[in-house]
Amino acid sequence: MKYTKPLLKLIEEFQKFPGIGPKSAERMAFHILNQDMQNIEDLSRIILEAKTQIKRCSVCQNLSANDPCEICVNLSRDKKMICVVSEPKDLLAIEKTNEYKGLYHVLGGLISPLDGVGPENLTIKELLSRVSKNNLSEIIIALDTSTEGEATTLYLHRIFSPVCDKVTRLGFGLPVGTELEYADELTLTRALENRCEIK
Amino acid sequence: MKYTKPLLKLIEEFQKFPGIGPKSAERMAFHILNQDMQNIEDLSRIILEAKTQIKRCSVCQNLSANDPCEICVNLSRDKKMICVVSEPKDLLAIEKTNEYKGLYHVLGGLISPLDGVGPENLTIKELLSRVSKNNLSEIIIALDTSTEGEATTLYLHRIFSPVCDKVTRLGFGLPVGTELEYADELTLTRALENRCEIK
Repeated sequence: MKYTKPLLKLIEEFQKFPGIGPKSAERMAFHILNQDMQNIEDLSRIILEAKTQIKRCSVCQNLSANDPCEICVNLSRDKKMICVVSEPKDLLAIEKTNEYKGLYHVLGGLISPLDGVGPENLTIKELLSRVSKNNLSEIIIALDTSTEGEATTLYLHRIFSPVCDKVTRLGFGLPVGTELEYADELTLTRALENRCEIK
Repeated sequence: MKYTKPLLKLIEEFQKFPGIGPKSAERMAFHILNQDMQNIEDLSRIILEAKTQIKRCSVCQNLSANDPCEICVNLSRDKKMICVVSEPKDLLAIEKTNEYKGLYHVLGGLISPLDGVGPENLTIKELLSRVSKNNLSEIIIALDTSTEGEATTLYLHRIFSPVCDKVTRLGFGLPVGTELEYADELTLTRALENRCEIK
């Protein structure tokens, strides 16, 4: 005896989500069955709406219901700076700092030969055309510090340093709130290299 | 700047699921956006199908697409035994042991005055009518050993011992594979009380 078929299919569907195991999927499926029909119709509609309404902004490639997106059309943004990120959630992380007022460009991934992702699978061509059309003062490369992130940063630097005067990357160093003894050697080496005067 | 509205709504929907926090909900929403339209239409349909097709079996109250459910119509099942469980997942846990060949009754919860759940909110009336119509040899009460489970077990025992000769409950004791030093005192007390001869 197993669960009845429509329930099994539902549990299987939920298991396809990242980070959802068999037990969580089961709990989610029972949650569905315990809801009012109205709520479930809403859920089903919201999933379809998100999928149909959300597109990539044709300028910065960020996810948005509007094209161009809210950031690209915002007049108070500094149009002379572009911050290059891998995914929309990275863009949001930088927005939350309230420190950056320029534009963005979402690559849609990182160069990773093992996963079959080359430069041609990212939105580098679109970025090149943006850079050549606009007279930029700075490109900030803000990618993960993983192997793939490093490879992509170096690649982008090689491509864009001939066409833009200033190509920078995020600073390396100790994360705020860390205890020094737990920092790994590479981070500590970079933190030493990037040491700065106390103001 | 926040995520675009349809995406925010989708993240909010996922956060309503049990055990899903903001970060998981975000990952699930991005998973949706990265899927083919076809997969998402399937997901949406499977959710609605599960909700519309799965009903409670009118006999044992288990979730099923058929009424009566597969267990209730199975001729090889012992119709003289009913095992009372709280939820369909408890039924499945017992089925997985392959030890029990009788029927089930799903209460749909446990008596919990703090949560406003009284005996009238459970399927006890339905169980009473099953017991009075069939000449049962045994009712096995298989509920959680939490406070609510204990209260419900005692309540059911009081109701059903006058109408059924044998009302039993699951045995208490050490779980298989435990180290004795980590067993709590109450479990150890019960395990001592339930000690049995070595065969």
